[in-house]
Amino acid sequence: MSNTTITAPVGFRCGAAACGIKKEGVLDLALLVADGPCAAAAVFTRNRFCGAPIVVGREHVRGGRLQAVVVNSGCSNVATGRRGIEDAYEMCRLTGERVGIPPRYVLPSSTGVIGRFLPMEKIRAGIDAAAADLRGGAEAGERFARAILTTDTRPKQACVSLALGGVRATVAGCCKGSGMIAPHLATMLAYVTTDAAIGAAWLRRALRTVVEKTFNRVTVDECQSTSDTVAVLASGRAGNRPIRPGSAEADAFRRALEEVCGGLAEQIASDGEGATRVIEVRVVGARSASDAHRVARAIAASPLVKTAVHGGDPNWGRIVQAIGASGATFDPLKVRVCIGATRVFEQGEPVREASLDDLRRHMLSRRVEIWVDLGAGAFEDRMLTCDLSREYVAINAEYTT
Amino acid sequence: MSNTTITAPVGFRCGAAACGIKKEGVLDLALLVADGPCAAAAVFTRNRFCGAPIVVGREHVRGGRLQAVVVNSGCSNVATGRRGIEDAYEMCRLTGERVGIPPRYVLPSSTGVIGRFLPMEKIRAGIDAAAADLRGGAEAGERFARAILTTDTRPKQACVSLALGGVRATVAGCCKGSGMIAPHLATMLAYVTTDAAIGAAWLRRALRTVVEKTFNRVTVDECQSTSDTVAVLASGRAGNRPIRPGSAEADAFRRALEEVCGGLAEQIASDGEGATRVIEVRVVGARSASDAHRVARAIAASPLVKTAVHGGDPNWGRIVQAIGASGATFDPLKVRVCIGATRVFEQGEPVREASLDDLRRHMLSRRVEIWVDLGAGAFEDRMLTCDLSREYVAINAEYTT
Repeated sequence: MSNTTITAPVGFRCGAAACGIKKEGVLDLALLVADGPCAAAAVFTRNRFCGAPIVVGREHVRGGRLQAVVVNSGCSNVATGRRGIEDAYEMCRLTGERVGIPPRYVLPSSTGVIGRFLPMEKIRAGIDAAAADLRGGAEAGERFARAILTTDTRPKQACVSLALGGVRATVAGCCKGSGMIAPHLATMLAYVTTDAAIGAAWLRRALRTVVEKTFNRVTVDECQSTSDTVAVLASGRAGNRPIRPGSAEADAFRRALEEVCGGLAEQIASDGEGATRVIEVRVVGARSASDAHRVARAIAASPLVKTAVHGGDPNWGRIVQAIGASGATFDPLKVRVCIGATRVFEQGEPVREASLDDLRRHMLSRRVEIWVDLGAGAFEDRMLTCDLSREYVAINAEYTT
Repeated sequence: MSNTTITAPVGFRCGAAACGIKKEGVLDLALLVADGPCAAAAVFTRNRFCGAPIVVGREHVRGGRLQAVVVNSGCSNVATGRRGIEDAYEMCRLTGERVGIPPRYVLPSSTGVIGRFLPMEKIRAGIDAAAADLRGGAEAGERFARAILTTDTRPKQACVSLALGGVRATVAGCCKGSGMIAPHLATMLAYVTTDAAIGAAWLRRALRTVVEKTFNRVTVDECQSTSDTVAVLASGRAGNRPIRPGSAEADAFRRALEEVCGGLAEQIASDGEGATRVIEVRVVGARSASDAHRVARAIAASPLVKTAVHGGDPNWGRIVQAIGASGATFDPLKVRVCIGATRVFEQGEPVREASLDDLRRHMLSRRVEIWVDLGAGAFEDRMLTCDLSREYVAINAEYTT
């Protein structure tokens, strides 16, 4: 099988280690290292209590150059004050030392419980072991993708190749994220590699555009994380002429980046804590972009809609309730609601000929589609989420203990 | 035992019936009737898809006079178009006819599944039976309080007596509400009776003030209902001189009203769908009233905080996450967080001497208190909510079917 992990683009290696932050023997520290400095961009959480690695990561990515990512899972290094910041710097310093690059070229990430200090002895040993483990190939990429997980049940990866002026380039990504998912600018850790030659400034703009349409359109529990990070590293090793903004290649690259990020976002929704189904909410006919977003988010965030989907119960009244509470402007008599291919509500009333059997069948499928036409304008939006199950409660009632 | 139901104030009777909208033999239709026209005020949901009874109720309460309330449970008459509105008027007409009062003196309410038409034959029979059942006394009030319930596990009532210029007056209320609870101006059905003599205009102002501090500070699932209604009927039969705005009696009455509404709101939180504990969130030191409210609501609405409380897990990192995501302005280094009497977070770091045993014990009590000082100003607010359990999911995954 060909390599579809983050080591697929030319110029990247990964290493991982089990250093004892999580359960004995479980991978919990990982390195992604490029052969040389990469053009890089990243977006981070807007949570006011952002983690220490975010503070350091923002500073390191400012120059538009990164060469490595160091990540641990099991402890998020959030709400840890000055000592947390020092620990995040120390992770970069240790990585730089072992890999032979300046610490400012390292992006640090941590994910896991909030409010605990990093066990730095374990981290140090983990970085040593992961550096010794650095290599290319699919297995190394897989190990990285597994080492960054917390409550996720599976690694999340996506890979797309594209032609850039006759040269073949690759964009690949992996991410983690299952609970505390309601990204505002980014989501829980996501890393994208590419071998395309590309400037950091344009890369940053492209990333922002793409993240807005992909990661920022997923919610599991409407809880914005303190650690959200999406980073792209472009090694430039594909051999293409550097992508110029506004060119056909720029378009192709942005589409590839969107496909990778969209694929990862979809995997986050389908692996939402306790999830058994993905829910796609599409809103059309809104008076403004923000109204379209409000309505889509209100439906996707509603625990009543999510539990109804979990039970396979076509209780569309809860969709109407969420639309009405969203704050968007519309005429209730012009609103139409479909579940799957079945119209359930229009002209202010239930659609009498709606087939309850069709509805039930669709509600029990792996992907439930909710479609709303507000009849108020030409704007649209979409959100991805998952159902809300007893398992979500079980997972989160017993997380730290 | 003395009467502490809504028939306790002088001049009110209740009747209830099981007319088959809910399960056979379960009370699902109720009447509250005053001996004469009452000064009345009501506040309703701001959900754009408000129910048909809300449309009719708004019109009927506009004149400041009501003499009866007719309520059915099992079907909310929401998203039912023109026919729904006609059905709500018909409920008032039938009630007026049977009780001998003008239909415009009747406030209609319906609660239950959204998107179904009222079974009007059953409603008609129910109104007949409830009218034949009208009487005073505690049992009649109890039956009313039970007939309006849906997923609630118990009736919710509160009663306070007060002296008004040497005369004894009573304020009593009952309500229902367990899921779809995040009131914005009001909550699921609540009815307050009083025998105090009082003008409708001031009563309306007092009700708005009180509702803002009581019902509007409860959330079960952050889903604003389409049927929220809080109505007060004042019979004036206590014999007090009519309350003058600005007087000591006005203050006393407002305090009594707040005690009744606060008691009902607390009962809603503690009977939230699947709830095992009440959570009280207090926020102090905010830069503005809206910041205080945002932070309190962000914590109270967080499924991660609510599941942690359910599991008795003192995972305070999730409180910090919610504060950070609230959008409020503050300096993270100045924020302090307590759970019960235990400080867990200050100066940007975990409090090391926090006793995990004390925390666990408090987290397992029936009432969990979360206290946040933002260190940014002098404004404060509070919210009541409940924990999030597997039962919430079970109840809502299997609601209509």
